[in-house]
Amino acid sequence: MPLRAQRQIAARRPLRLGAATITGGFWHDRRETNRTSTIPAAARRLEEAGTLRNLRRAAGHEPAGDGFAGKLFADTDVYKWLEAVAWEQARSASAELAEWQKTTNALVEAAQEPDGYLNSYVRLVLGGQRFGDLEKGHELYCAGHLLQAAVAQSRATGDHTLLAVATRFADLLCKTFGPGRTEGVDGHPLIEMALVELYRETGTSAYLELASYFVEARGHGLLEPPGHHGPAYFQDHLPVRDVRTLTGHAVRALYLAAGATDVAVETGDQELLDALRSSWQTMVESQTYLTGGVGSRWYGEAFGDPFELPPDAAYCETCAAIASVQWSWRLLLATGESQYADLIERTLYNAVISGVSLTGREFFYVNTLKVRNNAFADDQRSAVAGRQPWFGTACCPPNVMRTLSSLDQLIATSDDDGVQVHLYAPATVAAELAAGSVGLEVATRYPWHGRVTVTVTGSPAQPWTLALRLPAWAAGCTASVNGIAQPTGPAGRMLELRRTWTVGDEVVLDLPVGARRTVPDDRIDSVRGCVAIECGPLVYCFEQVDQDLVLDAAAVSAGDLVEVERPDLLGGVTTVEVPARDGRMLTAIPYYAWANREVGPMTVWIDAR
Amino acid sequence: MPLRAQRQIAARRPLRLGAATITGGFWHDRRETNRTSTIPAAARRLEEAGTLRNLRRAAGHEPAGDGFAGKLFADTDVYKWLEAVAWEQARSASAELAEWQKTTNALVEAAQEPDGYLNSYVRLVLGGQRFGDLEKGHELYCAGHLLQAAVAQSRATGDHTLLAVATRFADLLCKTFGPGRTEGVDGHPLIEMALVELYRETGTSAYLELASYFVEARGHGLLEPPGHHGPAYFQDHLPVRDVRTLTGHAVRALYLAAGATDVAVETGDQELLDALRSSWQTMVESQTYLTGGVGSRWYGEAFGDPFELPPDAAYCETCAAIASVQWSWRLLLATGESQYADLIERTLYNAVISGVSLTGREFFYVNTLKVRNNAFADDQRSAVAGRQPWFGTACCPPNVMRTLSSLDQLIATSDDDGVQVHLYAPATVAAELAAGSVGLEVATRYPWHGRVTVTVTGSPAQPWTLALRLPAWAAGCTASVNGIAQPTGPAGRMLELRRTWTVGDEVVLDLPVGARRTVPDDRIDSVRGCVAIECGPLVYCFEQVDQDLVLDAAAVSAGDLVEVERPDLLGGVTTVEVPARDGRMLTAIPYYAWANREVGPMTVWIDAR
Repeated sequence: MPLRAQRQIAARRPLRLGAATITGGFWHDRRETNRTSTIPAAARRLEEAGTLRNLRRAAGHEPAGDGFAGKLFADTDVYKWLEAVAWEQARSASAELAEWQKTTNALVEAAQEPDGYLNSYVRLVLGGQRFGDLEKGHELYCAGHLLQAAVAQSRATGDHTLLAVATRFADLLCKTFGPGRTEGVDGHPLIEMALVELYRETGTSAYLELASYFVEARGHGLLEPPGHHGPAYFQDHLPVRDVRTLTGHAVRALYLAAGATDVAVETGDQELLDALRSSWQTMVESQTYLTGGVGSRWYGEAFGDPFELPPDAAYCETCAAIASVQWSWRLLLATGESQYADLIERTLYNAVISGVSLTGREFFYVNTLKVRNNAFADDQRSAVAGRQPWFGTACCPPNVMRTLSSLDQLIATSDDDGVQVHLYAPATVAAELAAGSVGLEVATRYPWHGRVTVTVTGSPAQPWTLALRLPAWAAGCTASVNGIAQPTGPAGRMLELRRTWTVGDEVVLDLPVGARRTVPDDRIDSVRGCVAIECGPLVYCFEQVDQDLVLDAAAVSAGDLVEVERPDLLGGVTTVEVPARDGRMLTAIPYYAWANREVGPMTVWIDAR
Repeated sequence: MPLRAQRQIAARRPLRLGAATITGGFWHDRRETNRTSTIPAAARRLEEAGTLRNLRRAAGHEPAGDGFAGKLFADTDVYKWLEAVAWEQARSASAELAEWQKTTNALVEAAQEPDGYLNSYVRLVLGGQRFGDLEKGHELYCAGHLLQAAVAQSRATGDHTLLAVATRFADLLCKTFGPGRTEGVDGHPLIEMALVELYRETGTSAYLELASYFVEARGHGLLEPPGHHGPAYFQDHLPVRDVRTLTGHAVRALYLAAGATDVAVETGDQELLDALRSSWQTMVESQTYLTGGVGSRWYGEAFGDPFELPPDAAYCETCAAIASVQWSWRLLLATGESQYADLIERTLYNAVISGVSLTGREFFYVNTLKVRNNAFADDQRSAVAGRQPWFGTACCPPNVMRTLSSLDQLIATSDDDGVQVHLYAPATVAAELAAGSVGLEVATRYPWHGRVTVTVTGSPAQPWTLALRLPAWAAGCTASVNGIAQPTGPAGRMLELRRTWTVGDEVVLDLPVGARRTVPDDRIDSVRGCVAIECGPLVYCFEQVDQDLVLDAAAVSAGDLVEVERPDLLGGVTTVEVPARDGRMLTAIPYYAWANREVGPMTVWIDAR
């Protein structure tokens, strides 16, 4: 395999796989649940739901039989799960994981047609008629998830079986789509991101060219809008480089934005990158919930207008939160700006992991910020219905799996001059700088405690820069090197410590993770006069089950917020006692942990007038 | 034809058709536009859209040709328009109206199959396969609109052509559906109301029995929920008499509620009526916008949870407002309580007529209460897109037409003892009481002015009661009879004036229609800290085009509201000047008239903190 292709725009580089490892703490626990509970349960779900059977039938391993199980993009549930299975093996191999990968790869390989095409729905239901409905067919979306799983397997396990399948399919796509061939784009973006990753993995520039074509062709009315929706539903209303505000289906918009960022970075297209950064800024300032969740509208699963952020009607699809993380990660690498990591952290700790229960076996599709007393659920996706073991459209569960399985990759980056630590967790980090090899060990009880200790475990003799992210909420943070206080400057940036480091040097960062009140932007109608409670990166919420009073009518007053460590509660959390207007106390818990005891009234924002 | 069947529960009776006539003023003007502009334009639209051609093809008057124009319920656009055409003829005959009725009746008659079945979509697209998809097929919904049009023609014009078509179809339905026959209900209610009206018109009790069956069969899981939706989407989650809060698709819920009220009234089912009244109370207290609009959610076109009433995301389908009027009218007749007429008035003046432009040629499907600066429209139904000449699903335009054409019928009722005037307009009213014939003439410039003068133009020698509605907002109203002040008591009830009336007696009612500030219920998140401006029954709004400052950032302060008569503006309105926080003045216009100059930022509720 050729080396990963060069990024034309890259303020930061990802570390090589395995160079950063979370070794304990908050995320380690969540990942263990993911590995030991979620991924195995999903293997059974994929069987029970008929998703794997679709592939067996397409492969001819079973008679075609009656119909097709699930939605036409059901194959992607398998691919995302395979991706999680691959990343897990990079952390720690297991016979079970290897067997799943081997068996499923064989199935996928057998389902591939001689010319590289692969899609069980098209094979079983459409009689092999390809690309007849680019608007709704999801064929390139399915291909994209296959490519991503293949790249993950190649990187994480060195197994190139799926990569061979993926390149055959990608080669077919290159022959099929583009100027002078079929002019068209898929109604559901994803292929763009996947093709660029395949290009990075294989060095085949045709994949980048096709990704670039898909990005550029979009927004010129190639797609017939579906139903009542207009072309913005699938981002075909404007050329991508002319967009300054994301609209339409949130997951589609974000996967496209991430893919377009990949294309901009690989082709050195600063104009395109600037347009995307502008959309990101609009999104974070006016279309993102406090939890990092995005997508204000159930109708069309869509972004709302700026400042249309109703907590009760929030859609905040788990997949959209994950897509937001993927996009921000790409912008972080391109620019090095800590605001992107701030949003990644906010989104991961809140909107992403609220999507999975503490047991790892149930999932939210929709991550609302408010449930009233007697709220009515008439939809499997509604938060009011509680987390579900699986869905008819099961995009979210395996998306959570692959995100948790690959989380190591997001904690740090490097550049020629140093290492940047973006997410705080007990971890080891290694990086190759121009000056030589660097090793770090991070110790922390973050997010419950604000102290982060970074010990240098390897260093060249030359000076280099250790950069630590100071989250935007971390005003008042302090730092020291070997016990000597360091100026930190304002929060919301990287603290850059450049010196000649020696093994054993110790950096201590103290972040103010104590409970704070957050006041909303005045332009958001539905939370005017309210506050929310946050501790460090965690957004808190009030669940009825913890209160002595009726939550719907509750209001808070000024007065001290009291943190209480509760190792017994919800897998171990810090709760916050908040004075209520009537003199009693309200108890807030981390938002991600809500609906793990009962599904009842809950609110992030609470009346504070 | 037999006389109209007896209602078992009827505090009030509708007047016979033609007994009440609006002779001038606000509604007269709207109706003239409806008659001279809207209905003729619709005749052309029905042709252009292919809706009439569907019927010609089904009738064999044209070769079946390629496909079907519009949605599978397209026939109903014709039926609702025919209903409007019929009611118009009761007001004033015209050769054009008569010709439309005759020609279209002939078409509908010819499209009917020998056994009474009639549906152009089923004939042309489904090869005559009937009732195969009760969930989505809309066959009984289409039948319902046919029955309603037929009853209107019979009553308004004495033409029984369509009534014969309708009874043949209804007879087939009676043979097809019910216990021991096909057990099923239609995914879209309406047939219930229509069958009861047909029963009232023909005296055929089988129609009432079938309506009763459809009401009782609902809520027992006969329907397979569509897509992501649960059974509440089409009110199949609970038996109708167990419902206390309306949920799901608002138009469906309201048509069903109206039909169930008809059944309760005709069968003397007080328990069912009480359940419906309870749902109405919940709706008006917690699920109705200030405009009378209902349906908080675009997703599923559905009612929200109680107090989920975001102004920006409001769906408030024009048809839902009309359905709300139809339901309230039935409850008004059943109970005589003025609260039902209060809601009728609020809904008509605001949520219904905002659905049609001042020219009568463009329509809103969705009646939002707030549009931000740079709000994005990606849907033909979005208010941001402006009123549209017609829709792919064109349910709303002809629904507005039949509502305006039949408005006379809602202004007054009678009982054995007297006449009740519910809506104030220049009008003549005649009623037959136990004591003899009564005549009234109403003179008023309502809603722009609050004085209503009722002159007795006919009276028996015995005493009877003239009842005038005192709207709930009319605190401080005054009344006199022949110049002698009368105690009015509190507002929100009927003012009952019982005496021996003489021709020439004059009652003067003065309603305080001056501008007032309305404060929202504290439980509605998105308008907390805001006020709205109302004048009499009219809700006002602020349009950017009238302001010197940016509406999105505007806030109002205390201080006098100044009314300004503007005969030159928007067909003649009173505007209200409202002090802004920055010392300037904001101008409010009646909500119904917004988006008649430009489609820009607009808000009903405005920050008043």
